[in-house]
Amino acid sequence: MFREKIKVLDCTIRDGGLMNNHNFDFRFVREVYKAISAAGIDYMEIGYKNSKELFSPKEYGAWKFCDDDEIRKVIEGVESETRISVMVDIGRVNIDDVKPASESPVKMIRVATYVKDIDKAIFMVNHFAEKGYETTINIMAISKDQGVELDEALRQIENESKVNVVYIVDSFGNLYQETTEMLVKRFKAILKTREVGFHGHNHQQLAFGNTIEAIIHNANYLDATIYGIGRAAGNCPLELLVGFLKNPKFDIRPILDVISSEFIPLSKKIEWGYVIPYAIAGMMNEHPRAAMALRNSDKKESYREFYEGIKNTGLD
Amino acid sequence: MFREKIKVLDCTIRDGGLMNNHNFDFRFVREVYKAISAAGIDYMEIGYKNSKELFSPKEYGAWKFCDDDEIRKVIEGVESETRISVMVDIGRVNIDDVKPASESPVKMIRVATYVKDIDKAIFMVNHFAEKGYETTINIMAISKDQGVELDEALRQIENESKVNVVYIVDSFGNLYQETTEMLVKRFKAILKTREVGFHGHNHQQLAFGNTIEAIIHNANYLDATIYGIGRAAGNCPLELLVGFLKNPKFDIRPILDVISSEFIPLSKKIEWGYVIPYAIAGMMNEHPRAAMALRNSDKKESYREFYEGIKNTGLD
Repeated sequence: MFREKIKVLDCTIRDGGLMNNHNFDFRFVREVYKAISAAGIDYMEIGYKNSKELFSPKEYGAWKFCDDDEIRKVIEGVESETRISVMVDIGRVNIDDVKPASESPVKMIRVATYVKDIDKAIFMVNHFAEKGYETTINIMAISKDQGVELDEALRQIENESKVNVVYIVDSFGNLYQETTEMLVKRFKAILKTREVGFHGHNHQQLAFGNTIEAIIHNANYLDATIYGIGRAAGNCPLELLVGFLKNPKFDIRPILDVISSEFIPLSKKIEWGYVIPYAIAGMMNEHPRAAMALRNSDKKESYREFYEGIKNTGLD
Repeated sequence: MFREKIKVLDCTIRDGGLMNNHNFDFRFVREVYKAISAAGIDYMEIGYKNSKELFSPKEYGAWKFCDDDEIRKVIEGVESETRISVMVDIGRVNIDDVKPASESPVKMIRVATYVKDIDKAIFMVNHFAEKGYETTINIMAISKDQGVELDEALRQIENESKVNVVYIVDSFGNLYQETTEMLVKRFKAILKTREVGFHGHNHQQLAFGNTIEAIIHNANYLDATIYGIGRAAGNCPLELLVGFLKNPKFDIRPILDVISSEFIPLSKKIEWGYVIPYAIAGMMNEHPRAAMALRNSDKKESYREFYEGIKNTGLD
């Protein structure tokens, strides 16, 4: 029933950190790592590797920077087959800060990029690959960037990069299953020697459905987060994905436990998940930043005004 | 872009009523009716037509019984093209209580049935059709009832009934898009002279995705509810469905307004939507009643125990 090549990557701390400036404390991150490890999840993405020259450690938590020593404190003494991943954004990392993989607890580096920055992304993944890391390129905001430049970018990746996996990232939660199917097929057609991954957002409650659609069309790297935590409406819930996949190596129970003990209390403190302004942003194919600002204002339930604002003027 | 044959049925009050014993007050129901009418939704299902000999009006609100006069009070004076629907359960209605359609504000009667009761359902829809109503048969718990008896039931419906529409009802929120596709195709293959409908449940956050899948494979009658209210994890959110369908007759804005004004306050008083016990029931293909009982107990966040209880013994 199951497809052995499928790898699940938990990005709870990394994408969830976008809702609290990466201010998860060590105990919390360690509880997540224990649960992810016990559940048999393949990868755990623990944060961003950003330069401290660009972002202040006073404003952001440790998982905005992901120093190797901080990661070691989280994983030390926990029995685990889970591989640690970090994400880097183009132009926000000092690549010389990244040690060779043999000296680091990190096993995978994922480069987040827009189509227009694909040359820089290729340079970076090649650099990290030479240092011994597994690498991915995550193409963000794909629902706004489906012109011929996308095919050209994919051809460049296939021909010029050492990357292992190329992700479709539905940053705006705009994809439906037909658009997901079309994109996976387009990626697979060009990236003949790479794996394809899928990272959904749940603005229209379609992150899990689109992830299933990506699986059907042979995407093998799947992102998910515990209880769906993540920017705005969040991501594909890991518990649903594990319930769907039939691979006996996965165990849903540690994920259920950590939701009970950690994520229910957290959900009273920070907001993520389905709310109407995110749904509107998703269906209008817009970045959720305006919706996130609305949720932090006294107009948080003024949906019609928000809808008409986007409809009449656009957000960008 | 749009398919003119698609009809949207709002069952906010009917399915939502399963979470509060149908105790919506008149003002609330009228606000919903106004919003549904202004949004251009084709049908609004206002409740069940149950016999007062079987259920006490002291225990249940008006929308458990749907007397014609109570419905008139809701709709009077509201400009509307929306047609009123009521649902009946096999064995719970006195069919002689139902007046001819020409004397009633109700335009459609939907008969909810299991596969095993299909003969009774056919008898009832034929009776209501003769009284001048549009009719549907809604086959519940379809994820547990996919044997050859289903094909036989569909053939009987096609050959012996006057029904207009036959619904696939994913009572347990267990279907994925592949199972949805397969069922819609199976229904369409046998029901050559009827329309096929889809009623999703959101236990695994797939109600909207499965509804899209049903649309793709030519189901034309689609159920949804405002802000996804409904039993347990609720239904396909109407606002998402209207955002997806491109038919210019629909207007999402009155739905956004009534969510702001009525459903956000209501969501603080009664619980519906995605919570882990419903997700577990959905993935295990079980009725949500045990999960609903858990949510009303002091073990509401004891997910592992609940999961192992279902896994080890089953619920039925």
